[in-house]
Amino acid sequence: MENLKIIPFGGLGKIGKNMLAIESNNSILIIDCGVMFPDETMHGVDVVIPDYEYLQKRKDSIEGIIITHGHEDHIGALPYILPELQAPIYGTALSMGLASVKLKNTKSVKKDLINTVEPGDPFDLGPFNITLFNVNHSIPDAAGVIIKTPLGTIVHTGDFKLDHTPVHGKPTDFHRISEVGNSGVLLLLSDSTYADTPGYTPSEEIVGRSLDRLIGEAPSRVIVASFASLISRIQQIGNAAVNHDRKMGIVGRSMVDNVKLATEMGFINLPPGTVLSDNQLKSHPPESTIIMTTGAQGEPTSALARMSINQHPNVTIQPGDTIILSANPIPGNETAVARTIDNLFKLGANVLYSRIEQVHVRGHASQEELKLFLRLAKPKFFIPIHGDHRHLVHHSRLAQSVGMSEKDTFVMENGDVLNINAKLKAELIDKIPLRDNYIDGKQSGKISNKILKDRANLSKQGVFSISIALDIETGDLIGNPEITTKGFIDTAESVSLVETACEIVEDVLDSMGDKSDLKQLERKISEHVSNFLYKQIRMRPVVITTSVEV
Amino acid sequence: MENLKIIPFGGLGKIGKNMLAIESNNSILIIDCGVMFPDETMHGVDVVIPDYEYLQKRKDSIEGIIITHGHEDHIGALPYILPELQAPIYGTALSMGLASVKLKNTKSVKKDLINTVEPGDPFDLGPFNITLFNVNHSIPDAAGVIIKTPLGTIVHTGDFKLDHTPVHGKPTDFHRISEVGNSGVLLLLSDSTYADTPGYTPSEEIVGRSLDRLIGEAPSRVIVASFASLISRIQQIGNAAVNHDRKMGIVGRSMVDNVKLATEMGFINLPPGTVLSDNQLKSHPPESTIIMTTGAQGEPTSALARMSINQHPNVTIQPGDTIILSANPIPGNETAVARTIDNLFKLGANVLYSRIEQVHVRGHASQEELKLFLRLAKPKFFIPIHGDHRHLVHHSRLAQSVGMSEKDTFVMENGDVLNINAKLKAELIDKIPLRDNYIDGKQSGKISNKILKDRANLSKQGVFSISIALDIETGDLIGNPEITTKGFIDTAESVSLVETACEIVEDVLDSMGDKSDLKQLERKISEHVSNFLYKQIRMRPVVITTSVEV
Repeated sequence: MENLKIIPFGGLGKIGKNMLAIESNNSILIIDCGVMFPDETMHGVDVVIPDYEYLQKRKDSIEGIIITHGHEDHIGALPYILPELQAPIYGTALSMGLASVKLKNTKSVKKDLINTVEPGDPFDLGPFNITLFNVNHSIPDAAGVIIKTPLGTIVHTGDFKLDHTPVHGKPTDFHRISEVGNSGVLLLLSDSTYADTPGYTPSEEIVGRSLDRLIGEAPSRVIVASFASLISRIQQIGNAAVNHDRKMGIVGRSMVDNVKLATEMGFINLPPGTVLSDNQLKSHPPESTIIMTTGAQGEPTSALARMSINQHPNVTIQPGDTIILSANPIPGNETAVARTIDNLFKLGANVLYSRIEQVHVRGHASQEELKLFLRLAKPKFFIPIHGDHRHLVHHSRLAQSVGMSEKDTFVMENGDVLNINAKLKAELIDKIPLRDNYIDGKQSGKISNKILKDRANLSKQGVFSISIALDIETGDLIGNPEITTKGFIDTAESVSLVETACEIVEDVLDSMGDKSDLKQLERKISEHVSNFLYKQIRMRPVVITTSVEV
Repeated sequence: MENLKIIPFGGLGKIGKNMLAIESNNSILIIDCGVMFPDETMHGVDVVIPDYEYLQKRKDSIEGIIITHGHEDHIGALPYILPELQAPIYGTALSMGLASVKLKNTKSVKKDLINTVEPGDPFDLGPFNITLFNVNHSIPDAAGVIIKTPLGTIVHTGDFKLDHTPVHGKPTDFHRISEVGNSGVLLLLSDSTYADTPGYTPSEEIVGRSLDRLIGEAPSRVIVASFASLISRIQQIGNAAVNHDRKMGIVGRSMVDNVKLATEMGFINLPPGTVLSDNQLKSHPPESTIIMTTGAQGEPTSALARMSINQHPNVTIQPGDTIILSANPIPGNETAVARTIDNLFKLGANVLYSRIEQVHVRGHASQEELKLFLRLAKPKFFIPIHGDHRHLVHHSRLAQSVGMSEKDTFVMENGDVLNINAKLKAELIDKIPLRDNYIDGKQSGKISNKILKDRANLSKQGVFSISIALDIETGDLIGNPEITTKGFIDTAESVSLVETACEIVEDVLDSMGDKSDLKQLERKISEHVSNFLYKQIRMRPVVITTSVEV
């Protein structure tokens, strides 16, 4: 009996954003393999990758991984996961170019796993017949996926919006969606990122016009900060440079890398000589210079953040500089962005940002576009994906507003398993327990939720570390307990607290009969000292007791 | 020779927001005494209060403290600072009512320091003749201040917007500002919070209409979350309750306290029986219930946040509940608010928030209102206040757009001293070094920047705590070093790291000739182990070494 399973993986609330699996009997197709960015509670975590244990156990059944586009949250986990799964990956030229760059230091992944496919050209992977189709997004060469399965056709939008006047490539492929909609779609999975936003998302062209005007009005040097992956924005800045007789410098490693790749692949087209070398940039007159750089999210180590505190090795902000932040702050980054803007103003620059000029548009469809897509695809079943729970709820309401019934719409969580059987009955049949896979520096899979909880506790009121020496024979205290604190309080009061804490340590040791269980003894000391500190000054630093046997 | 000094204090970037001093010769007038809320880098800090050392040294010169309105960022530091300064405070009835509540546990402050004054009634404090005037803001009874000094008249707006149809009290007092503008204003200090926002701020009335409609449409219980200080919002919800035959429950301690005070003082007017007691609320039918509560910023301990994770003692979210978040997220709170919304949706509630309905308006003037105020006041000098640096820059540009010259506009930083001499020449003459005064639980003034830096480091990769016992005579190691970690990594690998670290400790001790300086010895061990950990696994936990002499 044929059946289909849909399983969204990973994502810090963004359902199926970073990875999603489609199973047809015993064959598995994976869509995307990206990272999530940690929230403010995940101290010390660089990125989070999906829990791929379920897939690892079934690696022999994996037919391939489709990459919808080249953003970090869709390709960033490849270096961690591909060596384990060793499955072929498929995507458009730019997506595969960016994936190759990501994987260049991952020796265990062979080059022949990377396959570039053209939108519109169908190919087979086991029981799946796959065709990519063009969609508009904030990176060129983004694609949605049409997957013919034995039970019916699945459409997966990837990240998308509808842009009738895109800067790069073609508009979202209405004709193909319309065609496949007419021949019958079993299941639609569609981007919900902005499903709570009424109306239409403006075209990238609008931003181009704003940027051209602002660059034309700028009295001296212009510095534009955006995302390194926003190739169309870089192209538009280049166009404005040509239009206003300026030359363009590129600053920031990821921006330099991406401009190089996109130019080689033909996604950035500028007259020769438009882009300045680092050396040329140093001596080029400011009034005919544009610098394109990273740091529009206020990331502390980015080029713009370093410029804003006068610590960039090559670029010094000058009064008269015009700085354009061509991005909206991602939730969580608002304060860092505000700090960067303030610091730039303090250096005498004029800063233009989204509250005061239209210098950015979103890369995701708003409600009217989502409704149009639903109407074109006419699916039997619908799974809103790529959003927090509230976005999925709004998207499912949009589906109902265009005539779908609530029972055919599935608001899922990561790990949920939707099963469609041979009679085309769809139901949630299982939930795979998923954990977050934290990546911290070189460490993968070694940071647990307990470790994060300890870090959060340490961050609140510091650490109070007690060392004691015990007689290895009798268990009696030898010498005095010694205490070191970090991040606690730093006044005279802490000295008297430390003294009293030492007395408590001695009392606890005196009161214990059997001292053979060192761990229990240390726990008991920590507990008593912790309670004392709370009683005394209402603070609860992390108390650690370590005993040395002598 | 007469002279005037203006000194903004405190504020994490918000210039003069929480406290500002005006000095006329040797007399000092203070405007506001509020707290700032910590940013994400201030681990464990509850609030930050202004550095008042300058004022404490001159406490005998302080004539009084004017409170413009009853928000935390304008009155919240009174319990910390008033006991030190012992100066009389002046403000409108509601501001003084809220200040009294704040001060009720501060025994060292006598009641007779609190003075209620009527807007429009002038009073003298030393050389200052003071008149409060009505302004609109997101709390009733908010005031601006007109201060006649020997050198001329100063106008301070407080936090304000222009609302022609306010829910409470009178519109901003255009006539008085116009009158004082005609008789000559030496200096205007004006609210810059939204100086980068074009147009006009909508009236509170608009929100009332939205809320009334949404409550009318709700199928069952309605829960509205807002700020406890937003008395006019509470009044509007009460009006909607009456209009739709519902009764209102109040949940959340600060909301209950404020409703009680505002009702007693006549700022909330509702028919008897509109507000339910806690007991009545339990048994009242959901379809005729509105609950007004706190937590619109996603604060983890607030009533709404606890409801959203099913942990509120009295209110259990039910499918069919309509929840209205009648507030915009304050920058930095976006992710907490989003999490709360998601959790409420997961419990089956319908959540309405500012992206999808007009359920909140700002309390601060936008650009057109700021220009009107500048035109009415016609000041000789202008200081934009209450904003981050970028807002002050935008406000100074607005002043220039209505005809002021750049040299008469002063974009200041906290601690800057603007001096106006008898010849009415204004210039920045000094900068008082200010530090942030962190409040952590019961601890005031005991948290330094070093402590915060240690906490930040602890949060990143945890702590690696080494204990050693040393022979008190020879300084030789006795027994084995013992290591305890918290928030580091938790795999088998950490065991082998700990073992090697112990060997390093022994090596360092062996290599040291003179072991008499224990602190130096501990530092050296920590340094070597830290470098080893970084080399081995690219991690830098905080390493602490504590030695016990036996």
